[in-house]
Amino acid sequence: MDLLDEPVPGVGTYEDFNTIDWVREKSKDRDRHREIATKSKESTLALMKSISDAFSGWLLMLLVGLMAGALAGGIDISAHWMTDLKEGVCLNGFWFNHEHCCWNSNETTFQERDKCPNWKSWAELIVGTNDGPFAYIMNYLMYVCWALLFSFLAVSLVRAFAPYACGSGIPEIKTILSGFIIRGYLGKWTLMIKTITLVLAVSSGLSLGKEGPLVHVACCCGNILCHLFTKYRRNEAKRREVLSAAAAVGVSVAFGAPIGGVLFSLEEVSYYFPLKTLWRSFFAALVAAFTLRSINPFGNSRLVLFYVEFHSPWHLLELIPFILLGIFGGIWGTTRLGHYPVLEVLVVTAVTALLAFPNSYTRMSTSELISELFNDCGLLDSSQLCNYANVSVTKISSDALPDRPAGPDVYTAMWQLSLALVFKMLITVVTFGMKVPSGLFIPSMAVGAIAGRLLGVGMEQLAYYHHDWVIFRGWCSPGADCITPGLYAMVGAAACLGGVTRMTVSLVVIMFELTGGLEYIVPLMAATMTSKWVADALGREGIYEAHIRLNGYPFLESKEEFSHKTLAMDVMRPRRSDPPLSVITQDGMSVEEVESLIAETSYSGFPVVVSHESQRLVGFVQRRDLVISIENARKRQEGVVSASRIFFTEYTPPQPPNSPPPLKLRGIMDLSPFTVTDHTAMDIVVDIFRKLGLRQCLVTHNGRLLGIITKKDILKHMAQMANRDPDSILFN
Amino acid sequence: MDLLDEPVPGVGTYEDFNTIDWVREKSKDRDRHREIATKSKESTLALMKSISDAFSGWLLMLLVGLMAGALAGGIDISAHWMTDLKEGVCLNGFWFNHEHCCWNSNETTFQERDKCPNWKSWAELIVGTNDGPFAYIMNYLMYVCWALLFSFLAVSLVRAFAPYACGSGIPEIKTILSGFIIRGYLGKWTLMIKTITLVLAVSSGLSLGKEGPLVHVACCCGNILCHLFTKYRRNEAKRREVLSAAAAVGVSVAFGAPIGGVLFSLEEVSYYFPLKTLWRSFFAALVAAFTLRSINPFGNSRLVLFYVEFHSPWHLLELIPFILLGIFGGIWGTTRLGHYPVLEVLVVTAVTALLAFPNSYTRMSTSELISELFNDCGLLDSSQLCNYANVSVTKISSDALPDRPAGPDVYTAMWQLSLALVFKMLITVVTFGMKVPSGLFIPSMAVGAIAGRLLGVGMEQLAYYHHDWVIFRGWCSPGADCITPGLYAMVGAAACLGGVTRMTVSLVVIMFELTGGLEYIVPLMAATMTSKWVADALGREGIYEAHIRLNGYPFLESKEEFSHKTLAMDVMRPRRSDPPLSVITQDGMSVEEVESLIAETSYSGFPVVVSHESQRLVGFVQRRDLVISIENARKRQEGVVSASRIFFTEYTPPQPPNSPPPLKLRGIMDLSPFTVTDHTAMDIVVDIFRKLGLRQCLVTHNGRLLGIITKKDILKHMAQMANRDPDSILFN
Repeated sequence: MDLLDEPVPGVGTYEDFNTIDWVREKSKDRDRHREIATKSKESTLALMKSISDAFSGWLLMLLVGLMAGALAGGIDISAHWMTDLKEGVCLNGFWFNHEHCCWNSNETTFQERDKCPNWKSWAELIVGTNDGPFAYIMNYLMYVCWALLFSFLAVSLVRAFAPYACGSGIPEIKTILSGFIIRGYLGKWTLMIKTITLVLAVSSGLSLGKEGPLVHVACCCGNILCHLFTKYRRNEAKRREVLSAAAAVGVSVAFGAPIGGVLFSLEEVSYYFPLKTLWRSFFAALVAAFTLRSINPFGNSRLVLFYVEFHSPWHLLELIPFILLGIFGGIWGTTRLGHYPVLEVLVVTAVTALLAFPNSYTRMSTSELISELFNDCGLLDSSQLCNYANVSVTKISSDALPDRPAGPDVYTAMWQLSLALVFKMLITVVTFGMKVPSGLFIPSMAVGAIAGRLLGVGMEQLAYYHHDWVIFRGWCSPGADCITPGLYAMVGAAACLGGVTRMTVSLVVIMFELTGGLEYIVPLMAATMTSKWVADALGREGIYEAHIRLNGYPFLESKEEFSHKTLAMDVMRPRRSDPPLSVITQDGMSVEEVESLIAETSYSGFPVVVSHESQRLVGFVQRRDLVISIENARKRQEGVVSASRIFFTEYTPPQPPNSPPPLKLRGIMDLSPFTVTDHTAMDIVVDIFRKLGLRQCLVTHNGRLLGIITKKDILKHMAQMANRDPDSILFN
Repeated sequence: MDLLDEPVPGVGTYEDFNTIDWVREKSKDRDRHREIATKSKESTLALMKSISDAFSGWLLMLLVGLMAGALAGGIDISAHWMTDLKEGVCLNGFWFNHEHCCWNSNETTFQERDKCPNWKSWAELIVGTNDGPFAYIMNYLMYVCWALLFSFLAVSLVRAFAPYACGSGIPEIKTILSGFIIRGYLGKWTLMIKTITLVLAVSSGLSLGKEGPLVHVACCCGNILCHLFTKYRRNEAKRREVLSAAAAVGVSVAFGAPIGGVLFSLEEVSYYFPLKTLWRSFFAALVAAFTLRSINPFGNSRLVLFYVEFHSPWHLLELIPFILLGIFGGIWGTTRLGHYPVLEVLVVTAVTALLAFPNSYTRMSTSELISELFNDCGLLDSSQLCNYANVSVTKISSDALPDRPAGPDVYTAMWQLSLALVFKMLITVVTFGMKVPSGLFIPSMAVGAIAGRLLGVGMEQLAYYHHDWVIFRGWCSPGADCITPGLYAMVGAAACLGGVTRMTVSLVVIMFELTGGLEYIVPLMAATMTSKWVADALGREGIYEAHIRLNGYPFLESKEEFSHKTLAMDVMRPRRSDPPLSVITQDGMSVEEVESLIAETSYSGFPVVVSHESQRLVGFVQRRDLVISIENARKRQEGVVSASRIFFTEYTPPQPPNSPPPLKLRGIMDLSPFTVTDHTAMDIVVDIFRKLGLRQCLVTHNGRLLGIITKKDILKHMAQMANRDPDSILFN
């Protein structure tokens, strides 16, 4: 009975919290592909199967796009409705949000659309009026109560059903994509609970965003849909290709930026990103964007609330304030977000709601706030921020209005925004450690957008009142539209987001897709570049890297170069003082001996050598495979007992007549283990591990096996070199 | 005297037409970086040097962007002027092109701008009139003569000064980026001649484009500017990072698409594309685009002649004609372009000019043709293609005009376009094999755009006259703007370009940047995807791969999977019938023995083993390094003679008193050669070669050295597996 023919179930799979071997997984997939291709020549049915196999990847992408787009649409609509529910209810039907409720009220003019008769604030509904301090307090109380209810529900659901649903999920997804296994992290329970609690958390008015969690939701969709196709269900490497595409889908629906999403996946989260995945991710991201658009959650055929179309020009000198915003973003990026595990969620919610309600800029949802800040004031705009004194408009060639002096409302708005800035900055730091689904794209963007708008309005007024200053002369003559405060808000948002996440190209492309103009790439780039440099120079890592390190995941960062001059022999185990490497000989050991070796050690695999004396390497066998195979042989194979000899050789020599039957295990041995020499520089070893996705590598000297290096050894070594605790790496 | 301390000049460099070892180059760069970082702590000067070293990459990118942008602007302006010169001359000054000449003539109305008094056609200048058959023949003759002159000059210059300047250069750049060395291909002579002859070739009216050659020009700029910085001059891997970015710059200026350019470099030409390069490419591409914009070659602050802004919607049913265009593009992509080495350039030019002149669509430059075909007819358009019967315009809410019946001029235009399509298709096939700089982006786009426009106008008229058909009902009611022929032209152009180059994401992004609308991504994607599938299904490779194979370059394609079930032992040398592997022992050989081994074999390197008996691997030494070191030792090192023993060991044993001094060569030996076992599947080996950029890999069995696999062996094996001639791989 040869184990090669009939693989034992479980051989070749991985345990939870372990790292996969990319080379083996990809090789397995190629074997499967080859088998299908060979069979396809035999019968029509097999040919059909081969064709369907080839297209299953595209079908899967379509499904992921549709599902994630639909879920994102649902989340948007629900969050919108529940956010409005905190302020009032619609008489036409409680399921209408404020905007939909007033959709049909034709009697109101454009400006008064918000105040349609069918929409009742809680005070109006309960005490019949919206005026007076009593009604205000009534509304205030209802606002706080709803917020507390939502956040209580969110926290309870997460705690009770799916602890993996909290946070943004991006650090874990990065780790999973690099080859780590966390069972259940992308499962159906996590998806369900995350979707529901995300809506609750966003609606509760906490300072958190849905963009990061949407990536997690999309990845859950991808993972769950993988189960429909054998090709992806059985292969950890293939499944990670789908997850990379799903991450792109998540950003695509979060920002309405399909290209930006693909680049985000490529630049920020993916580990193995072949060109085929690039193309498929793009397809899935587009499908998702169009699904979301046809759901039309905002009623304006835009994918996000803060889409803008800018056309006003900018001046080269404006790069100075843009770079200042970049510095601000970089400093914001070094905030220790999420390092404070907050347990008293209800306290935070209550504080947030109590402080947020009186200020209209913090009361509105963060997306609406960003949308308002990005907005370039037109003639018809009635918002507080656009309350400019009317000057005689001399030329309206384009939509752009000339710079005007600010009216009193603008000054009020400035005060409110300054308070909002301080509030948002403080509360975001606290909020991000909470055990609810929370992203920090939107809060970070809001912080940046407020700072940018403040600076923009300041610049605008400066240019209006001092247009004869040297710096303004020539481009800010009276009546010219020279400063666009909305652009400053956008640049500030990009800078803060860049500081926190250290995204670069993908961030610029996302902002480019949000604005639809090549003109602003330079300001955006200047700000994000400054922000990244400042944040890097201040010596802190990006938020995702920080969280990966906090959790001790075995993640081999591909961005930073390993720059120390150590050799493989300095890192490999056993060290000089350790007992020699545990090896198995190819034909000399009994089942009992191997079992005791397994019991005595905790290594996840053993090298197989010709003999203990020669230490010539034959192959490598995984602990898990060995345990399963021996167990299975003892159960099923007749006569295999503790005294049976185990053979890893190609041919088994004839056994003496009375000896127990041998156990042939060549089938479970990896015949092509990776080796490096002991003199190989560690930077090359790190490169090999990264590029090939290895789990372990054997070290030889002049053809003799000397030791072994695992991914964990490398991470520990890197931690040691950076003067960190090497025991912070917790998993294999 | 240890060779480790003072490296012999030449050791570690490569010969022409050889492949570099990426691992070694990157390791060298890390060593250099480490040295600078260590020194920087010692003195302020060294610290400054370290900082300038860190920023030299960005500075280089800035310079590449500026230089390539300026060159592209110059090429655009000159080509524009010389194209117009074929038709006439400006009286204000012969250096004005037609448009600039008529710029200042205020007396003419908008429609008659083309006919300003200062611009004289050749007939007007010579015989005084532009009417009558004689004047027509006069203009005709002058047109042909100029064309012949330009193409004669182009061909002569290329032949005389820079044979590398012909073609598009992209296949060679792909090969160079994968690690091959072609000295002079990106040198200053090539740059100069290519720039000049590109202008000449484009102006001669031949059916070729400047987009591909612009990538070559940008790469030349990158390569030349590398010489300013030691970091890039000395390191082949670092230089290739710059070249990858330069390729992005080339596409950025060719299409005004910086993001598309970066994706083109990533998807189509690059081999090693770390994230750092992504970010830098993007920066360089932007700098180039802005340089070009400030030069403003077309006088409309657009980067390309055929930039459009579309806003008309499209209907889901239109996907059918779009997919038809995709099929057309796929078939066009299988045309055997460039397989006919045409020597009679003047004949082709004469035929092109003679056939092109009578048809106004072939007479105009191809970019202008594409621009006209992409154009959506507005109310003011006076072109032949926009001659629609006037129907009472009921609603002009947007710029879009309702569908109208075609006027007689449109029918004429259709005929002319059909003839132009046949002409372009035939002449492009012949033109692409000529020895002048020639790209096929623009000719391919033109073919597709003509086909698309024809289909679009056909659809439009069908919808107008049969708006009651089931398929048109609902979206093509009379007075509705339901078909946009310009969009069809654009989709057709994308399909044909995609068929020829097999670009996917980058092509869609380029078209997206050209149109500036997310709406058309789906039609563009449907067409490019269909076109790629059709072309792939018809079994032909992309134009670049075909040319790489024709030239026998050692290029390991990263897109196609290696799917055969062969093992390393089937591919390695020596084969079973061959003499054993030539090895050097670490302490047993004399200078004479090694020299005779070098003389007898032509291998580019030799493994070093412990002894012939044990065949345990110690390291690998390059032939070139060995030759240079022995030569150098014989010249300089006292007493090294033929009988001297060569040692690769760490410690040299004491020599008997009368023996000649030993030669220690451990310093030139690679102590960490890559090894795989003989049982390693070839798909894994191919993966390792691709990902790590190896040149050779040693094969072991149970710790004994068995053979060697080089990149050439792999390519030969792949050719054999695909039933091609393995000897088509010409270089190492």
